[in-house]
Amino acid sequence: MTKYAIGVDFGTESGRAVLVAVADGREVAGSVYPYSHGVIDEKLPDSSVSLEPDWALQDPEDYIRTFQTTIPAVLKESGVNPGDVIGLGVDFTACTMLPAKADGTPLCNLPEFRGQPHAWVKLWKHHAAQPEADRINATARQMKLGWLDRYGGKISSEWFFSKALQILDEAPEIYKAADRLLEATDWVVWQLTGVETRNSCTAGYKALWSKRDGFPDRSYFKALDPRLENVVDEKMTRDIRPIGDRAGGLTEQAAGWTGLKPGTAVAIANVDAHVAVPASTVTGPGRMVMIMGTSICHMVLGDEEQIVPGMCGYVEDGIIPGFFGYEAGQSCVGDHFAWFVENCVPAAYEDEAHKRKIDIHQLLEEKAAKLKPGESGLLALDWWNGNRSVLVDVDLTGLLLGPTLATKAEEIYRSLIEATAYGTRVIVDTFQKNGVPIRELVACGGLPEKNKLLMQIYADVTGREIKVTASKQTPALGSAMFGAVAAGKSAGGYDSIYKSAQKMAHLKDESFRPIPGNQQVYEKLFAEYLRLHDYFGRGENNVMKTLKQIKTEVRHAG
Amino acid sequence: MTKYAIGVDFGTESGRAVLVAVADGREVAGSVYPYSHGVIDEKLPDSSVSLEPDWALQDPEDYIRTFQTTIPAVLKESGVNPGDVIGLGVDFTACTMLPAKADGTPLCNLPEFRGQPHAWVKLWKHHAAQPEADRINATARQMKLGWLDRYGGKISSEWFFSKALQILDEAPEIYKAADRLLEATDWVVWQLTGVETRNSCTAGYKALWSKRDGFPDRSYFKALDPRLENVVDEKMTRDIRPIGDRAGGLTEQAAGWTGLKPGTAVAIANVDAHVAVPASTVTGPGRMVMIMGTSICHMVLGDEEQIVPGMCGYVEDGIIPGFFGYEAGQSCVGDHFAWFVENCVPAAYEDEAHKRKIDIHQLLEEKAAKLKPGESGLLALDWWNGNRSVLVDVDLTGLLLGPTLATKAEEIYRSLIEATAYGTRVIVDTFQKNGVPIRELVACGGLPEKNKLLMQIYADVTGREIKVTASKQTPALGSAMFGAVAAGKSAGGYDSIYKSAQKMAHLKDESFRPIPGNQQVYEKLFAEYLRLHDYFGRGENNVMKTLKQIKTEVRHAG
Repeated sequence: MTKYAIGVDFGTESGRAVLVAVADGREVAGSVYPYSHGVIDEKLPDSSVSLEPDWALQDPEDYIRTFQTTIPAVLKESGVNPGDVIGLGVDFTACTMLPAKADGTPLCNLPEFRGQPHAWVKLWKHHAAQPEADRINATARQMKLGWLDRYGGKISSEWFFSKALQILDEAPEIYKAADRLLEATDWVVWQLTGVETRNSCTAGYKALWSKRDGFPDRSYFKALDPRLENVVDEKMTRDIRPIGDRAGGLTEQAAGWTGLKPGTAVAIANVDAHVAVPASTVTGPGRMVMIMGTSICHMVLGDEEQIVPGMCGYVEDGIIPGFFGYEAGQSCVGDHFAWFVENCVPAAYEDEAHKRKIDIHQLLEEKAAKLKPGESGLLALDWWNGNRSVLVDVDLTGLLLGPTLATKAEEIYRSLIEATAYGTRVIVDTFQKNGVPIRELVACGGLPEKNKLLMQIYADVTGREIKVTASKQTPALGSAMFGAVAAGKSAGGYDSIYKSAQKMAHLKDESFRPIPGNQQVYEKLFAEYLRLHDYFGRGENNVMKTLKQIKTEVRHAG
Repeated sequence: MTKYAIGVDFGTESGRAVLVAVADGREVAGSVYPYSHGVIDEKLPDSSVSLEPDWALQDPEDYIRTFQTTIPAVLKESGVNPGDVIGLGVDFTACTMLPAKADGTPLCNLPEFRGQPHAWVKLWKHHAAQPEADRINATARQMKLGWLDRYGGKISSEWFFSKALQILDEAPEIYKAADRLLEATDWVVWQLTGVETRNSCTAGYKALWSKRDGFPDRSYFKALDPRLENVVDEKMTRDIRPIGDRAGGLTEQAAGWTGLKPGTAVAIANVDAHVAVPASTVTGPGRMVMIMGTSICHMVLGDEEQIVPGMCGYVEDGIIPGFFGYEAGQSCVGDHFAWFVENCVPAAYEDEAHKRKIDIHQLLEEKAAKLKPGESGLLALDWWNGNRSVLVDVDLTGLLLGPTLATKAEEIYRSLIEATAYGTRVIVDTFQKNGVPIRELVACGGLPEKNKLLMQIYADVTGREIKVTASKQTPALGSAMFGAVAAGKSAGGYDSIYKSAQKMAHLKDESFRPIPGNQQVYEKLFAEYLRLHDYFGRGENNVMKTLKQIKTEVRHAG
């Protein structure tokens, strides 16, 4: 009898389920649920409480509704017997976290806290905890704590303790009322299984935990705030479960939501970019996975522990058991082109695209593809949204150098693509130089599908072949794979994620290979990029920060 | 009886006449003639001979047609009796030059040379003589010739001997057949008066002549090319006439063309930017005139001879007799905004402008005016068309620094305006530091009329009050003023350009004064501009040139 697994991928605006054949990874059915409250960044739902800038919340009920909507839909579409679904996995954005009671009830579901912004889920892109992140970094540096090196020397305002500390700073009553502080991905698994578990992936990448050293010491948390001293023991747990494990079986209640059988195996919670790695066929060192969308996550496995300056972090067993999982990223890729199209493309181009009934991105790609590398005379720095790796500096801004009165929109568009490719090249080179070799790139996400010119440029600039995953829903497939592993071989699944990847993950036949002539030109251009990158990014000329400071002063004064 | 003078301003695309009351400068009538051959930059008229890139020619018959069309038109419109028109002046673009026979016949009017591009008028923006300009500069440096200092250390491919040498290099038979090589402005005065004269303005600014030292030595011309040794004596003259003089009286033939009386006084030829100075009320030191259009010419008078690095040139008596006339410039101002509007403004803005029935520039100005200085976080270098002053480097290109995903079109637009203002500030500061004081700015040309935001930014950035000329045709008015001076006091005109300016030139009541709060912010921003200006412009990082070189190689290879 054919067996199936389901993966549920919780994104920023919607949740998505796919139902996958365990034998070969074939995607049989898919369904998307757009969150009814989407990203909450202006007012709390059904309320007049408005949010400060940089806030981004979600409603945990939207996650439950995702299960209630999408899983019945894929069962119906596929006609698969729920009894043949052997396992379920979930992945999530991260760090997306919430405060809850001891029984799992989110504080925002309690009437007394519903009007309190800090009671809601803080989405990964909630950026209001920068002061707390600064304190976390400064204190760790002061106390000379080695774990900071694991995160490239600096942690982000997006991460777990930045957000937790913000709750404590601004709403101590919420902090006090919260029996549990946890990642949303662990919370949804709790809702499915009735058992609270904590996964090694978010604990490692977002909450300063490591397999060897556990969490930072109580004295460190005390130094941040005396009330935080016992945060781990009071509101979290030291029992961190490796990804790939089975969290539990589906409860009667969750079976009712989904139409699946009670007891169906549920995998330990996971993160979108991380489950995409085995779903991209990568289960060992040497091949970097790029999850390419509005931003890029760069994921690579290493046999050994290496300190790589400026990466987002590395976690032992964080992606695939048995390896150090390294993560780096670029904060502005698809977003960059979206910005350009919205703000810089002349009406004549819109008209042409409209007349030819093609997308404006497609028109720009077509025009840009006619240009040769170096032909525009343009060079850009890809910092429109700061630099995540390897400079780890949100205060950097963009740069476009070389325009003349003859410069056309497609030339600027191409230079922005090239800039993001140079950004990836810096990351690849930094890993390579620091003992984490990268032989080949594997791309997944929306961009590889949409923009072949971009893929060719990445191959030319990095000098590496780029393969592309066959699945269009790589994270959801990855979650289904972890679901099949949670079920285990005896139930018709797999004993390990390696085995699962061998059968269920596939690449397209087509790949992008560097073109030697292009590579030569890009070597010269990259040298110029790197010089500007270092000049503006490493403190020699801090004009970008100075301008930001003037901007803040001016806005403040007004 | 009221007396009148006529000024004729020869532009790039058209010629324009204004008829002006001598007593008070009142502009009574105006007329424009769009040249029937415009700028010849693809094919010679009525011919299949095509031109190389960078070529720009004109047809001298278009100048005659300008007289034939516009002067009768202003006489008719005004109803003024031709006998009451006491003088006529002309101004021209420069260096716009042509080869002619001894009787003034342009070589391109001779059937045997009509199909020869080098026989036609080379327009100021003919840019194909760069190799010749390079030779002229290198040879002068080698021979340690001091006159190079008068031109900021480097002469341009646009200038007289660059163009003359190109004729010799590429069409020696034309060079040989040319009895005369002369500026078009001198040629039209010759056509009006029957007398060949050469004006001190173009001789000084464009042909390396100075009142004290005359032309460069024969040995220098010989070093450039033995055939060029006697170019001055063979094809030019050493008899250079000061501007403000009377060239002669109108011939019967020219009276026939124009409807004016034979013998009407005609002024020595002049140049558009230079006649604009007295027409802007400036006849002494301390006040800089900015002729603001697609580019800006900065004109200022000094009592003393000063070497100012990076200016275009200075000429004794070159603008106003008795003063050293200094000239600097920015190559890309109005052009900059035109490029931006054509290539970077999103369709939504075009729609809004269309719906509100306003010009897109007007919409952008309106939106940009709502921003405070420093609010956008953007900083640009105004080198989209190279840098004329003070870096004198056509190979520099543009820079935009600071964009983020929140950056809007009007912010970029404003940053480009600010960049050109910083460019003017560098020029003003350089003059000031080198002994040519600048107390106040006087603006004329199209931009001050069109863009009040721009004018305010220039005032804020330079920290100086900017006055604006009352005339919308400042050069044509200036030519009429020189016409009134050529006629002299006895004929109802003036004895000097000073006297004429006192009566005929006017400023608007409205001026632009620096706003202290804005000035403070711009001081900070200008410091950052200057640092980038020097870093990219003075050789520390030659990335702009490297990119241009790569661009050339790539295009060549293709």
